[in-house]
Amino acid sequence: MSNEKNSRVSLLGLGAMGGALAAAVVEAGYPTTVWNRSAGKADALVDRGAVAAGSVREAVAAADVVVACLYDAASVHEVLDPVVDELAGRTLVNVTTTTPEQSREFAAWAAGHGVVYLDGGVMAVPSMIGRPGSSILYSGSVAAFEQHRSLLDLWGESAYFGEDAGAASLYDLALLSGMYVMFAGFVHGAAMVAPAGVSAGDFAERSAAWLSAMTGGFAGFAAVIDGGDYTVEGQQSLEFSSLGDIIDASAAQGISTEVIGMVQNLIQRQIDAGHGKEGFARIIESIKHPS
Amino acid sequence: MSNEKNSRVSLLGLGAMGGALAAAVVEAGYPTTVWNRSAGKADALVDRGAVAAGSVREAVAAADVVVACLYDAASVHEVLDPVVDELAGRTLVNVTTTTPEQSREFAAWAAGHGVVYLDGGVMAVPSMIGRPGSSILYSGSVAAFEQHRSLLDLWGESAYFGEDAGAASLYDLALLSGMYVMFAGFVHGAAMVAPAGVSAGDFAERSAAWLSAMTGGFAGFAAVIDGGDYTVEGQQSLEFSSLGDIIDASAAQGISTEVIGMVQNLIQRQIDAGHGKEGFARIIESIKHPS
Ligand SMILES: NC(=O)c1ccc[n+]([C@@H]2O[C@H](COP(=O)([O-])OP(=O)(O)OC[C@H]3O[C@@H](n4cnc5c(N)ncnc54)[C@H](OP(=O)(O)O)[C@@H]3O)[C@@H](O)[C@H]2O)c1
Ligand SMILES: NC(=O)c1ccc[n+]([C@@H]2O[C@H](COP(=O)([O-])OP(=O)(O)OC[C@H]3O[C@@H](n4cnc5c(N)ncnc54)[C@H](OP(=O)(O)O)[C@@H]3O)[C@@H](O)[C@H]2O)c1
Repeated sequence: MSNEKNSRVSLLGLGAMGGALAAAVVEAGYPTTVWNRSAGKADALVDRGAVAAGSVREAVAAADVVVACLYDAASVHEVLDPVVDELAGRTLVNVTTTTPEQSREFAAWAAGHGVVYLDGGVMAVPSMIGRPGSSILYSGSVAAFEQHRSLLDLWGESAYFGEDAGAASLYDLALLSGMYVMFAGFVHGAAMVAPAGVSAGDFAERSAAWLSAMTGGFAGFAAVIDGGDYTVEGQQSLEFSSLGDIIDASAAQGISTEVIGMVQNLIQRQIDAGHGKEGFARIIESIKHPS
Repeated sequence: MSNEKNSRVSLLGLGAMGGALAAAVVEAGYPTTVWNRSAGKADALVDRGAVAAGSVREAVAAADVVVACLYDAASVHEVLDPVVDELAGRTLVNVTTTTPEQSREFAAWAAGHGVVYLDGGVMAVPSMIGRPGSSILYSGSVAAFEQHRSLLDLWGESAYFGEDAGAASLYDLALLSGMYVMFAGFVHGAAMVAPAGVSAGDFAERSAAWLSAMTGGFAGFAAVIDGGDYTVEGQQSLEFSSLGDIIDASAAQGISTEVIGMVQNLIQRQIDAGHGKEGFARIIESIKHPS
């Protein structure tokens, strides 16, 4: 047990994610205070040893480390602005999903009020908290990250991205964008096979295995991107990747081609610019340079 | 050893994929003949026991089962049309990537010439052939699928999708569309973090783990889609999934928003139609009903 277990932790926001984070903290034996806007969500945590605060101010006053897991940046300000005097001298770990600018704004606001600020982005769903595969991205105060490392590690693998408080949010949104785009790709595929009588459930099982396996390709694309030479041997060329067949088959099924057409547009702009023999990774140039 | 090992197998096309398929067949001890348009690609296989045919006709004449793994549908016709008389009475397994219509056209062409036709879609990269994670989708002649099952199983898990020769291709293209869309999502994320000094390699490692974990969400979306009720409890709503933050952060990094904007359009059309409180899986309605 580390000395850090003496840290008193308050958690604000006991929704799906905040509740999972709080449960891990209580289970680990930290002196834990919890608060939620609407009643009832603290009950199970109180049964397990947490103290329910009657107000945000009470929750903040009871803690060395305040963890905010609310809806969005506006709700964090709504909850904390009135008690910022009480926050002074304490550490705020804000794991509410925010944009990089919002995270930087929180860091400036915290600095202006003597609050130590660590911004976090949770890369997990609530059921994954504290289990393999969960990782939480942090940026902002390195001192807070180091001092409270054992606490943070309760939730998943902790990664630190530097003093720029916006860095973790940026990384978080970049990973989330990959996720939403992947979801759209899966749903597009499900829509393609549906008219042939394939259930979404059958397609989901096969897609999950296939796409997991295909994430193995990212490292190869990354090596080309980081190397800066899209002409290296052994890559699948943009011309070979031309998605006309998939677009035609989608259209033949009577569904929208906008999902797969998005990828084809990225490819086509590079082919049109004379790079058809180069590797697929070159689509990053279409993204870096909006048309 | 099954009797089927007496099947004589010829493989046409020894590119990256055809070469991997042929190697598995030779290694398994089948009497194997190989042919490739340009010279040299058969040499390593001949060293391992394959016979190199001097012509397509010779290769076809030597086999009970002819496996075609060429570039596209046109190249398969270019190679096989002149020898279709020789193919009569034999089984053609065409694992060249084709559209469903092309697969059906091959089935009709084969039937018209007394050729037993099995269409295949390889869901693997060459290095995965014969290893866990490789699966090959088939449709067309069920008799051919059953008779040659041990041969087909050499390459990966074999799945059969029915007598409609186009079914496997459709499934194949649906899985491929998921893959290409996922790749675009990954590259978009890499472009987002690049200006912050994050290497594509670092982002690839984290993305591969994150997206693999998030494929776990497909089953839940599928259950909602198959159930036909987008209002069931416990889903992430379309409104919550609104991607404005990701779009803003992408724009702030100076990159194109077309990749993530594609997903937002699918979401927004459902929100605009009054379904914002319903689950994310409802984006399939945007895809099924092109605007
Ligand atoms: N769930 C996930 O899979 C996941 C994954 C990664 C990150 N996150 C992030 O974690 C954060 C919380 O998500 P969640 O899934 O826990 O959401 P949730 O279940 O909807 O919970 C939202 C929480 O925020 C509170 N809240 C909302 N507006 C408030 C306001 N104006 N004042 C005070 N409290 C307010 C809610 O209180 P009430 O109970 O009173 O409504 C509730 O405690 C979000 O930023 C989300 O993006 C979630
Ligand atoms: N590689 C993969 O990861 C992968 C995965 C799944 C499916 N596939 C599918 O497998 C098939 C083969 O892919 P691959 O990766 O092996 O491609 P590849 O390495 O480019 O090989 C293409 C093969 O087709 C031959 N070919 C092309 N045009 C021809 C023509 N007009 N006449 C005769 N032969 C011709 C080539 O002969 P030459 O040597 O004379 O050029 C070569 O043997 C494609 O349909 C592809 O979509 C590939």
